Amino acid sequence: MAHYALNNDTIAALATPNGFGAIAVIRLSGNEAINIIEKILKTKNLNQKKLNNKNSHTTHFGIIMDGDWIVDEVLVTIFKAPKTYTGEEIVEISCHGSVFIQQQILQLLFKHGARPAQAGEFTLRAFLNGKLDLSQAEAVADLIASNSASSHLVAMKHMRGGFSNKIKLLRENLLNFASLIELELDFSEEDVEFADRSDLKKLIQSILEIIENLILSFDLGNVIKQGIPVAIVGKPNAGKSTLLNVLLNDDRAIVSEIPGTTRDTIEDEIVIEGVLFRFIDTAGLRNTKDVIEQIGVNKAFEVIKKSAIIIYLFDTHELSLGDLEISLKELKDHIGKSQLLVVGNKIDFEILEELKKEFASIPNITFISAKEKININELKGKLLSLFDTQTVNATDTIVTNSRHVSSLEKAKNALVKVIEGLNNQLQSDFLALDVRYALEALGEITGQITNEDLLDNIFSKFCIGK
Amino acid sequence: MAHYALNNDTIAALATPNGFGAIAVIRLSGNEAINIIEKILKTKNLNQKKLNNKNSHTTHFGIIMDGDWIVDEVLVTIFKAPKTYTGEEIVEISCHGSVFIQQQILQLLFKHGARPAQAGEFTLRAFLNGKLDLSQAEAVADLIASNSASSHLVAMKHMRGGFSNKIKLLRENLLNFASLIELELDFSEEDVEFADRSDLKKLIQSILEIIENLILSFDLGNVIKQGIPVAIVGKPNAGKSTLLNVLLNDDRAIVSEIPGTTRDTIEDEIVIEGVLFRFIDTAGLRNTKDVIEQIGVNKAFEVIKKSAIIIYLFDTHELSLGDLEISLKELKDHIGKSQLLVVGNKIDFEILEELKKEFASIPNITFISAKEKININELKGKLLSLFDTQTVNATDTIVTNSRHVSSLEKAKNALVKVIEGLNNQLQSDFLALDVRYALEALGEITGQITNEDLLDNIFSKFCIGK
Repeated sequence: MAHYALNNDTIAALATPNGFGAIAVIRLSGNEAINIIEKILKTKNLNQKKLNNKNSHTTHFGIIMDGDWIVDEVLVTIFKAPKTYTGEEIVEISCHGSVFIQQQILQLLFKHGARPAQAGEFTLRAFLNGKLDLSQAEAVADLIASNSASSHLVAMKHMRGGFSNKIKLLRENLLNFASLIELELDFSEEDVEFADRSDLKKLIQSILEIIENLILSFDLGNVIKQGIPVAIVGKPNAGKSTLLNVLLNDDRAIVSEIPGTTRDTIEDEIVIEGVLFRFIDTAGLRNTKDVIEQIGVNKAFEVIKKSAIIIYLFDTHELSLGDLEISLKELKDHIGKSQLLVVGNKIDFEILEELKKEFASIPNITFISAKEKININELKGKLLSLFDTQTVNATDTIVTNSRHVSSLEKAKNALVKVIEGLNNQLQSDFLALDVRYALEALGEITGQITNEDLLDNIFSKFCIGK
Repeated sequence: MAHYALNNDTIAALATPNGFGAIAVIRLSGNEAINIIEKILKTKNLNQKKLNNKNSHTTHFGIIMDGDWIVDEVLVTIFKAPKTYTGEEIVEISCHGSVFIQQQILQLLFKHGARPAQAGEFTLRAFLNGKLDLSQAEAVADLIASNSASSHLVAMKHMRGGFSNKIKLLRENLLNFASLIELELDFSEEDVEFADRSDLKKLIQSILEIIENLILSFDLGNVIKQGIPVAIVGKPNAGKSTLLNVLLNDDRAIVSEIPGTTRDTIEDEIVIEGVLFRFIDTAGLRNTKDVIEQIGVNKAFEVIKKSAIIIYLFDTHELSLGDLEISLKELKDHIGKSQLLVVGNKIDFEILEELKKEFASIPNITFISAKEKININELKGKLLSLFDTQTVNATDTIVTNSRHVSSLEKAKNALVKVIEGLNNQLQSDFLALDVRYALEALGEITGQITNEDLLDNIFSKFCIGK
């Protein structure tokens, strides 16, 4: 099916993160993988040529030798084709995590016939050998990059074929349709209609509906993958930085509970109950005298345009209900589809009930003290409530990949034309053409239809060693 | 033998470097390791309770489940006691290299009865279970930290027991001596001498000689481990920074040949034919008007005191032989045991022969152009020639650990007292006391004699997961 040539040479790369650690894993895949390791591995009680006779999925202690020089004591696991990740012979070498040793072993493997793997080449081979389809392969990269429960859940579903199966089902239905249409073509001189046009239209419409829902799901899919963009805006000294720090530090504390798993946190991300929120830099807004006054400024527009949620923070000691209503009115003209959370800061308990009464007319308002960490969990709950977590947990498929959306759009456009054609009593051969376009677009998603540029583009974004 | 209590609980930690990669490995060790993984791993064609029945050193594909939630598709390798690194049951989980997934799996393991491993705790258990002695355990950390062929070679030798065996042999000889002395003690009232005093003296002297050589080897061992400290000094504009950059970049180019193994280079280190050279910051010297004028300044003294090699760099267009001789004379008063390399910079080929003639009286002078990269390899060769690589490759044992040196010093002092005692016809009981001190000091090296503080101190320096 694939147009991409499958090389049978043997590739090698470091599969664990760069740098220094207790152990590192080097991975070999290809016809010569086991032969190469046998040339450089000395094992106790075994003569050199025996790894090839061992069962698949077995691990062997040995010493990697470069001539007389001991490179490392290692554990070598052999995986025999075809029940492996790539479908080829795979060898994994677990060595001491010195960067020097990693380099020496890789160099030795290259000297004995392996070559450095390109980014994503192991997964590319898995795809070319039919171990997973293209959208599953892409989900492997998403899974590795996942940093929240929701992005993990979606990537895992895709990797395990949830999305692929849906697309395959759509293609099958379309193929049925196509075969009926093409049958008509064969008998076109006889002017026969094998298929009931209104049934055909219903079929195409139901497929179209599914595709449109998939396209719509990308809004959600994208925020799951990238994080939900949130902007904290408000007048100077409302406490925006303090609030951001409280939210971020709270998250860090949870993360750093487990030794050895320090997270590479992007400065302004927090995960609340498995959902990633990404705070957009509002530094540009923080320095203006009055955020509302500045709302006309392009910078402020941009921030708000990029945010799904706007937290409008105000100092309860500074702003009266009247002031707040004026500010919110101006703000609301600009926030478009974004959701607004109004948050009163710097509360103290004595006046809380009074405040609640004063601001009762403001919908969904929250009172906190960022400095004293009062009601922060309540605020988090509100943030979370704006994101429909049910959607993620449902069995519905969510599209997270812009390449898939663009293929779905192509399929949609083609199918819209098919429906128009049916409405206009268009001849079968025109219908068949558009149906074929739609089939091709869907086939691109799973890789049944593909080309070298596309594969290069997808797999070059992977890390080396995967 | 060990005073340190061995916990039988099950420990877990990330064994691969922190961060994001194709795969990550999580390691479990302890009585419950296999039981814990069986609780959370679903494998195809196997019901839940079967990993325990599988052979040691086998690898199994499965899905880690937290209730109904799929955490990851993983490969699990089981190692059954006692033929494992720690001597306990070990399970290694190879998962997708997402930090989020690593955390989820670790949390799940902790929920099912494992606890987070302390730094070095796997190797500590290997030591407590007699899998390796203390100096071998320390060599594991050195091996992981090794960043040059020579530091790797020494660490590998120590890890494979070269040093331990030498120390054990010395202890056995001393024990023989001790038993003869203690026999005399039993019969002390009868005033018998079982051992010929001059033979005893010869034995102690031969042991002492070996210990002294080991202590001396630390000078070499230390530079192998830490790198040979080199200072580049010279007048402003002699080209010191350019030379340093040329040396460093040359090295980097070699290192970055292999994709995926970018080295965490410390800014000013280079490896020349497997030997690590560490350039000491001479920034303080670079800014002075005249380095020789400034040699009295403390900062300059310090740099020179810390260096094993001083490169004195001068501009061949600026300095006459007379000037150079004056500069070198002043410099030589301060360099002590450090070795001096005189390097003339900014040469051009036309006057090279002339220069060689002019400066013929300066021993071991090299002419280079740092900017044009002329004769840089010749300079590297000279640097290398000052370091006796033969010593590293020889079968002689080299001490690289300051803890070992301090134990050897203790043993040496005790044995010197034994010899004095023999010379002064001291009674057996006094001799026996000092021999016991020496035995204890040697036993500390291999861990036959140990205490909790010492173990804490050693293993806390390890990385987590080893």
